[in-house]
Amino acid sequence: MKYYITKTINYPFEEASVLITEALKVQEFGVITKIEMHEKLAEKIENTDVKPYRILGACNPEFAYKTLKAEDNIGLFLPCKVLVKYIDENTTEVVMVDPSVLMNMLGNKDLESVAEEVTTRFKNAIESL
Amino acid sequence: MKYYITKTINYPFEEASVLITEALKVQEFGVITKIEMHEKLAEKIENTDVKPYRILGACNPEFAYKTLKAEDNIGLFLPCKVLVKYIDENTTEVVMVDPSVLMNMLGNKDLESVAEEVTTRFKNAIESL
Repeated sequence: MKYYITKTINYPFEEASVLITEALKVQEFGVITKIEMHEKLAEKIENTDVKPYRILGACNPEFAYKTLKAEDNIGLFLPCKVLVKYIDENTTEVVMVDPSVLMNMLGNKDLESVAEEVTTRFKNAIESL
Repeated sequence: MKYYITKTINYPFEEASVLITEALKVQEFGVITKIEMHEKLAEKIENTDVKPYRILGACNPEFAYKTLKAEDNIGLFLPCKVLVKYIDENTTEVVMVDPSVLMNMLGNKDLESVAEEVTTRFKNAIESL
């Protein structure tokens, strides 16, 4: 099951993170949470080998509101996640959830149109990198 | 598709939020993100009718590490979400994602055992309320 959209770009990690944040903003999604997963893991586990792995939470309040109206517990999947993954010094992978695939898994027809719109915007964001 | 575990309890919103946070801690999950979804929506949309709706992000680094090793893009679903939903002044619904259902949807057999362990802990947390 491919539940994500991915693109590997020739930019260092921090630059790539700024670029995807800006690209999401163009699509009217704000980044409202940021988790440095590699740091969280390193705090508790000795000798982790996880390279920089940032989890961004992207939200557009209007779409969030529509999805909440259609499916009250959709908050379990909000905000939409975007991963920024270090590959090497000059290479970063950006991964976004594919909302259409996820919403199809939930089987709620009322979510289809908003999921399609969000998917289009996410694809636009990742393709613009 | 029922992808969540839910319990409605006779406590006010803020008290319920503290209770589930403590119950998660007993199960070795720390709350690392907190989003006041009702506030985020009200900032941008006029006349929203969304009652208090808090999204907590719960994480246990050891389980997170195991899942990342089994499925590199699982970060799209991390941290695990817990909803705290206002029903009325003295009633709150707590909703947690069911990790086993979610992992089954992804179809990766390597995630099964860790998903089962996390599901057990989430059920313990919600049943203790």
